[in-house]
Parts: sequence; structure tokens; C-alpha cells
Amino acid sequence: MITGKNYIGFTPSANGTKTYKTFNPQTNTENEDIFTVATSVEIDQAVALATEAFKRFSKISGKEKAEFLNTIADEILALDTLIETYCKESGLPEGRAMGERGRTVGQLRAFAKLVEDGSWVDATIDTAQPERSPMPKPDLRKMYIGLGPVVVFGASNFPLAYSTAGGDTAAAFAAGCPVIVKSHPMHAGTGELVATAVIKAAQKTNMPDGVFSNINSSGIDVGQQLVKHPGIKAVGFTGSIRGGRALYNLAAEREEPIPVFAEMGSINPVVILPKALSEQGQDWAKTYASSIMLGTGQFCTNPGLLLGIKGKDLDVFIDVLSHEIVKIEPSCMLHPNIKSAYSKNKLRALDQEGITISAEYKTDVKPNYAQQTVLTVNGKTFLENTTLHQEVFGPFSLVVQCESEEELETILYKLEGQLTGTLIAAEGEANAYSGIVSALQNRVGRIIFNGVPTGVEVCPSMVHGGPYPSSTDSRFTAVGTQSIKRWVRPFSFQDWPNYLLPIELQNANPLGILRLVNNKQTADAI
Amino acid sequence: MITGKNYIGFTPSANGTKTYKTFNPQTNTENEDIFTVATSVEIDQAVALATEAFKRFSKISGKEKAEFLNTIADEILALDTLIETYCKESGLPEGRAMGERGRTVGQLRAFAKLVEDGSWVDATIDTAQPERSPMPKPDLRKMYIGLGPVVVFGASNFPLAYSTAGGDTAAAFAAGCPVIVKSHPMHAGTGELVATAVIKAAQKTNMPDGVFSNINSSGIDVGQQLVKHPGIKAVGFTGSIRGGRALYNLAAEREEPIPVFAEMGSINPVVILPKALSEQGQDWAKTYASSIMLGTGQFCTNPGLLLGIKGKDLDVFIDVLSHEIVKIEPSCMLHPNIKSAYSKNKLRALDQEGITISAEYKTDVKPNYAQQTVLTVNGKTFLENTTLHQEVFGPFSLVVQCESEEELETILYKLEGQLTGTLIAAEGEANAYSGIVSALQNRVGRIIFNGVPTGVEVCPSMVHGGPYPSSTDSRFTAVGTQSIKRWVRPFSFQDWPNYLLPIELQNANPLGILRLVNNKQTADAI
Repeated sequence: MITGKNYIGFTPSANGTKTYKTFNPQTNTENEDIFTVATSVEIDQAVALATEAFKRFSKISGKEKAEFLNTIADEILALDTLIETYCKESGLPEGRAMGERGRTVGQLRAFAKLVEDGSWVDATIDTAQPERSPMPKPDLRKMYIGLGPVVVFGASNFPLAYSTAGGDTAAAFAAGCPVIVKSHPMHAGTGELVATAVIKAAQKTNMPDGVFSNINSSGIDVGQQLVKHPGIKAVGFTGSIRGGRALYNLAAEREEPIPVFAEMGSINPVVILPKALSEQGQDWAKTYASSIMLGTGQFCTNPGLLLGIKGKDLDVFIDVLSHEIVKIEPSCMLHPNIKSAYSKNKLRALDQEGITISAEYKTDVKPNYAQQTVLTVNGKTFLENTTLHQEVFGPFSLVVQCESEEELETILYKLEGQLTGTLIAAEGEANAYSGIVSALQNRVGRIIFNGVPTGVEVCPSMVHGGPYPSSTDSRFTAVGTQSIKRWVRPFSFQDWPNYLLPIELQNANPLGILRLVNNKQTADAI
Repeated sequence: MITGKNYIGFTPSANGTKTYKTFNPQTNTENEDIFTVATSVEIDQAVALATEAFKRFSKISGKEKAEFLNTIADEILALDTLIETYCKESGLPEGRAMGERGRTVGQLRAFAKLVEDGSWVDATIDTAQPERSPMPKPDLRKMYIGLGPVVVFGASNFPLAYSTAGGDTAAAFAAGCPVIVKSHPMHAGTGELVATAVIKAAQKTNMPDGVFSNINSSGIDVGQQLVKHPGIKAVGFTGSIRGGRALYNLAAEREEPIPVFAEMGSINPVVILPKALSEQGQDWAKTYASSIMLGTGQFCTNPGLLLGIKGKDLDVFIDVLSHEIVKIEPSCMLHPNIKSAYSKNKLRALDQEGITISAEYKTDVKPNYAQQTVLTVNGKTFLENTTLHQEVFGPFSLVVQCESEEELETILYKLEGQLTGTLIAAEGEANAYSGIVSALQNRVGRIIFNGVPTGVEVCPSMVHGGPYPSSTDSRFTAVGTQSIKRWVRPFSFQDWPNYLLPIELQNANPLGILRLVNNKQTADAI
């Protein structure tokens, strides 16, 4: 049941007076439930509980953490109004809701497996050499430990997989960090339902009160207070560059600066090499029409920038892409605010000099539905006008017709940091364009060959993150089990008695985890 | 030979008009060599060269990088006036100079071994599952790559091991990042000698011009320009909290924020439990008298804070410590500025209410020699007055007499972040103080049992870094091979053709490195 209350630890709480409702973009009406914005006192309470909970939660075994994570997954699957609530708060279809729930549950279980196995702590042991001269070598043993309470900002475009119990939260729990979720106002009901699942799981598996809180807010004050709070030790965010950068700045200005991992905007450049254009240009145009439209273009890996060398083959590609994309039925955006931002940003692009409209869905659409658009511009204009480098969140792409291979390479080097880059090449063609490949690699976190950037696999070799402004710290990924590294720090024990060491570092290696012992990987006891 | 010039890539350059000299604190006179501060144009040239060099240097093989690093070590050992220059620019004795040179060379060779072996890139491979439904699984392969040009600020207290070719530089080279060193003005001659060794090694091993530059400066402008330069992608710093925080702020305010790893101040709390005090208090007092005096107290791991529960045993400890420490001959500090900061910070501590002087070397000393001091204060006063938490860099320590175990725990939780924490306990005693151990662990990066914090082993399980303000990002270490992680980012290849992949990710695994393939550690080919 949706109560509209915050959860301060396990306790529902609604002491504030400011309220808000969510919105159904499909019916273009407000939903009924009323949510109460958290007060400053409630926020302090949540942080105090999390700080206290960290003392115990940071030390529980991997097995217990795994049980907690798996139980969250079970409880999410047991929520009977989740899919319905998700759909009416996002305008997304049921299939997508089910798929995203599957992804969310899969992520939780992947982290459960990771911590149950235990090797993720990167246990590293250098045993003592008391006889070494001139100085004896001490016994040193290192492993990852949690940073402390983490604040997670839910994403508008992934109400489940990157929100309340999404990737950031799952990774933080796995790391041993309590989580305070700043619920996304567009899907506060979905958020509350998932929050109740997390709390049920925490209680069932005997986790400390404060390991999780869910905080409602409709403006920016609540999030700011959370990020500035001295008890908070790290922040996870998925959203706009403006929002992410504002939080990053706040965190950097604290007396104790804390890490903010913000996954922000990206236009995901796609380079189509000449031979590929000539041999398979029409097929790629069809593929990209679909990729641009996927999820109403509301993916952070949406291909917003297509680059080729100008000529007849690129003209044909643009024609086919334009023809194909307007054949696809427009779909609903997440919220009227997202729709109006889409319209505004599209107009901003259209207003720039040298822009040609290649495709635009013209027929009238329902409110909050987005009309897909493809624009074209030449390389020189794109290079000189960075306004054209800005993301237009939605079913939109800009094709850049470059003068030459050199111009294309220059454009790539001048591009802002991106989550992904894609290379479309014919058999054997890529070898001849190593400069372009290097330039693309320099600007992105993941490079794709003959595919589309949409679709972000959850696995250990995924990197979702990249040079600024696609993320605030390219040294970490937001997707995949390695995202746990954002919330941990290495910790070293020197000459510590064996029985006082965490189990992962004890001589006997009772968990049988892989460890680096005196520079050798082994699961053996010492 | 010392020319006093900058090295912009391989080229000596001195186009500026501002000059400075180094100082011999033992003779209390200026040294003869004249150094020229780099101009704004020279800085731009160094960054441009580094940016260009990165294109090739980021892709050279581990074997070639290892050759470069080992040759730097050889060239440093071949410098015939290095030890003499080191001593006359630091006031440190020859034995220390030789030891630190050994450490520096050892670090370079350790990183050479790391990159020659190659497993450090954390190669992670998830092979494709084209038959998976509803969506085929792509082939994803991930490894670490270098961030780009790195600026390294030399440390005053380690003219070799944490300066020109010290740990930060060695780690950055190993990561594939060109390095621009902002030479420390107190030992600019030592810096130039080492710079010539690096350049010789780069030329001998065919590294690109720009892989290394050495920049002179006597003020803060040069460092600020470097950190603000858009071509710079990360910063390493060892020094004061004020200096490190200023650079961190500059980097966070950039249009593209960049990571700054600053290793800053620490007072390295040492907790002596009651039974240890009663049984071995006098021995520990003697040990700590030496540890506080080591290197004239100019180590970042100097034990500046000793905590015990008040009573007769602690009184005896303080008496013995005081008696022993004044028996040790005072020694020379690095520079008159360091000496005057020591005097000023000591006076600041002495000026606080509730402070007792337990020991102070009273006899007159030579200029720039430091008079060791031990102060005492009660727990309540220490808790309330954070001025007493500030580092006094030099042979100084403050003993806190706590009212109770609870007060000690509270003090630890309220302490600013520290590099190290030490627990002194009698046989079986630690078990009864788990609250204190947890509190200590919460505030530090490395915890030591029955030892001293001075002495930082270079090995994979070392953590030198900790919660702010001991460092700006507790998620990384500044010492040991794992410090390479500061300068790299994970990078993911999706469906990339095998022959175009970096050798570390190719099916055949020609380097035979350890890789995580479909969630299993193996050195096998695919």
C-alpha cells in the first residue's frame, strides 16, 4: 500500500507539511496518492540511524548480506501493485516494467552472489619477514571495507533498475554501506513500494534499523541537505549534467569532501566508416531508426550523434534513416516536464545556424508523446558550435557530415566525454582508421563494434561511466558488479593478530576466497 | 650537472625571469645554483607535448614500459652528485639519502615488474551468448587504461621517494600516463638531477618526447596553472592540508573536474590499552621516544597523538617517554620555513587551555634544529578543542589522558581522518576493546598492532591514504603498486574484433596474464 510517507529507517514518518503527487503522462492526469516531503529533522534522523547502523552492517558476513539482497529481490517480486504503479507513474508499457523489474532483481542477486563468494574484497597479504635487513618486514593484510552511509538519488528514466533498490543501492549494500534513497518525485509511489520491500527484507534478515531510509522530496532542498550532511560519506546519482554537477560541487565544498558518482548526459557518438556506409548503409539506417526510438529515446546510451564522411553514401543513409524513423509510432515520455525539456532542447538545436531537418514526425500526437527528429549539419559547423554537442534527451539524433577523415578525427578529440562510442565498419575496414578509433576511445568509457549503444549488459566487464561530463569520475562504472568499488576503500592491517582479523584475511582462509598472497593469486591457507 | 633550467619534454628551457635558490639548513646558507621559474608559455608547451605523447605512450607494451622504468632506476643510481645534492638541500644525513634512493629505485622496479607481468590491468571478459533470449548477450571485455597527462607535486620531506621520480610518477608511468612534475622548490637541484635521469632513460628506451617534463617554481602560480590546464587529467600531491585542499578545490572548480589525490596531514593516533601500559608501559615509552624523533619527526606517519586511560600507569609512561625523548640529540629540519612552522604550531598548541608540558629539549640548538616536545592534556579538553587535533609537523607528540574507555572511544570517533592508527595491547587484551578498535578503524587507512606507525612498507597490501583530511580520497593508496589505480580508468570493448583488441584482451592471451573470464579467474586462452 502506498502511504505517501517517508521511511526513516524502518519507521514510516510524515511530519512535514509540503506534499506532492505523481503524474500519469499517458492519461495526462495527476495520480491520487499524496506524498509528504521529508523535514530537516527527519533527514537528520535518517542519517543518525544510518551512522549507527553502519557500525554493525559494515561487519556482517557476506553470507548475511547475500541473504538480505536476495530477500529484497524476493520481496520486490512479491509486490502485487508494483507493475501497475510503475506504468501509471512513468507512461512506460507493462513489458518494459516487467523487463526492468527483472533487471533490478537480477542485479540484486548478482551482488548477493558476489558478496557470498567473497573474493571481491581483493584480499592481499604480504607475510612478515622478521629477518629482513636493515629493517624487518611487517605482516600486512589489506581488503576493501565500506565507506559509510551512502545517499542514492533515484533516476527518472529507470524507476526500478536505477532507483530505490537499483544498481547503486545494491552495490552500496553489498559494500556494507547503509543507504538513504532520495526518492525520485516522478515515481514516488513505485519508490515507496520498493522501499517497503527493502524494509521487509531487512527485518526478515535481521539487519540493523537505519540500514535503509527512503526520503520523499519534490524540490532540490532535501537532496542538498543530504549531500551536505557530515554523516554522509558518498553519493550516487543518475540524471542531468546540471543536477549531477550541482551535487558534485556541493560535495566538493564540504569541510570533508566526499565522492559523488554522477552518471549524467551523453550523446553517444556513432562513427560509420565509408565502406560500411557503401556496403550496408541502408541496413544500419534501419537499425539506428529503432535504436534512436527505443524507450522513447530516454536512455543514457541513446545514439544522439551519428558521424560519417560526406558523400552520396551518407546521403542515402540519411534518407533511409529519415524515412524509417518517421514510420515508427511515437510513444509517451516519462512526464510533461521531460516532454517540455525535449521540445525546448530540440528547438535550441534547430535554432542553430547551418542545421537541416532531415526527419520530423509531423502528425499530431497525444499529450506527452514525443515527435522523433533527425537533424543534419556539416562537420565545420558542428566543431565550432558546442551548443550542438548538448544532449537532447528523447527520440532525437544529429547526423554530422564531415569533410574528411581528418575532420572526423578532430571532432572526436574535441568532443566532451561520453558513456559510449560506436564504430560501424565493413570487414577489414577498421584497421585503416586507427586515428579515429584512438580518438573515439579517448572520449568514451565503452566502445562498440558494429552494434548499437542502447542495451547495457549487467556483467563484470561492463563499463557504464566515462570521461566528464558523462560521469563525474571515469575511474568507476555505475553498472555491473565492479560498481561496488565506488563505495569501498582499501584498508590495511599491520601485524594484526590472526584471531582479530576479518575472516577474509585470516591464515586459514575459511571462506576459500582468492587472495594475492606474497604476490601470488591463491585460495590456499597460509 | 645542475643547470637550473626547466625540462619541457626533453628540452632544457629557461625563458622566465624569476629565479630562486635552494637552502642548506645544516650550514644555514643558500646553495649556489640558480633555478628559473617556468613561464606560462613553457607550461603550455609541456602540457601540449604530454597530450601528444599520451597518444603513443598509452599504448606501448608493458615490456617497453618496464624497460623505461628500470632504466630510470639505473640512471638514478648512475648520478654521481645526487646524494651530496640531496643532503645539502634537505639537511638530512647521507644514510637517509642512500636509503631513500634505494626506496625510490625499488619502487620503480616494483612498477616495472607489475607492468611487465601485465595482470594489473584487471582484464575481465564476458563472452557472447548469441542464443540468449530475449536479448543476445554481447561479447564484453574490460581492462584498465591510463587517464592522460598527470601532474605530480614533489614532497618536501621525501626529495626522492615522493618527488620527481617517486611513487606518484612511477605509478603514472606504469599506468601509461605522461607526467609533468612540479618540482619542489626546497630541493630543485635534486629534482633536476633526477629529471635528467628520467629523460636519459626515456631517450634510451625510445619513449615519446613529452612523456616527462620537470617544471621549476618557487610560488603557487605555476602549480595552479598546471592543475587548471584542460590538458591535465589527474593530480598527485604530498604535503600540507592547506596546499592539498587548495589544489583539490581548483580541480573541482574546473569545467571538467579532475581527480586530485592529495596525501596530507595526519597525527596518527596511538591507543595504549591499560594492561599493556601496566605490563610494558616503560618499554613502549622508549620505543615511542625514538619513533617521534625519527627523521626529525618529519614523517607523515609520525605518532603525534598518544591516548590512554588516566592513572598511575599512564603517568609512568609519560614520565619515561619525557625522560627518554630529551636524551636524544635534536636534529636538523628540512628548511628554515619548516622549522619556523614547527615553532609556530608548537606555540599554538601550548597556548591552548589545559595543556601541560611534559618534555621539551631546553638546551640551545643550532639554527634549523628542532627541540622535541611532548605535551599532555585531559580527554575532555582535547575533545572540545579541535585546535589540539592539528598536526605539529616535527618531533612532537600530545598525550591524551582519557577519563574512561567510553571517552577514549568518543574521542576516536570524533577524530579527523588519519593515515594510520595504532593499538598497543597486552596478550589477549584487544578482544575486550572492540568498540575502541572499531572506532580507530573508522578513522584511519591502516591499523597497526603493537608497533609504531613510522615505516611505510612498499608492497601490494599497503594502504597509505585514509579518510579526509589524511587524503582527499580514501578509496586509493599513495604507496604500493595498487597506487596505480589512481591514474587509470576501466574501459570496455563490446563485440570488438579479436585482432583489433589490446593484447591483454585477445582470445589467445599471449601474455599469459590472469583474467576473469566468464566469472572465473584463469590464465588460459579462450
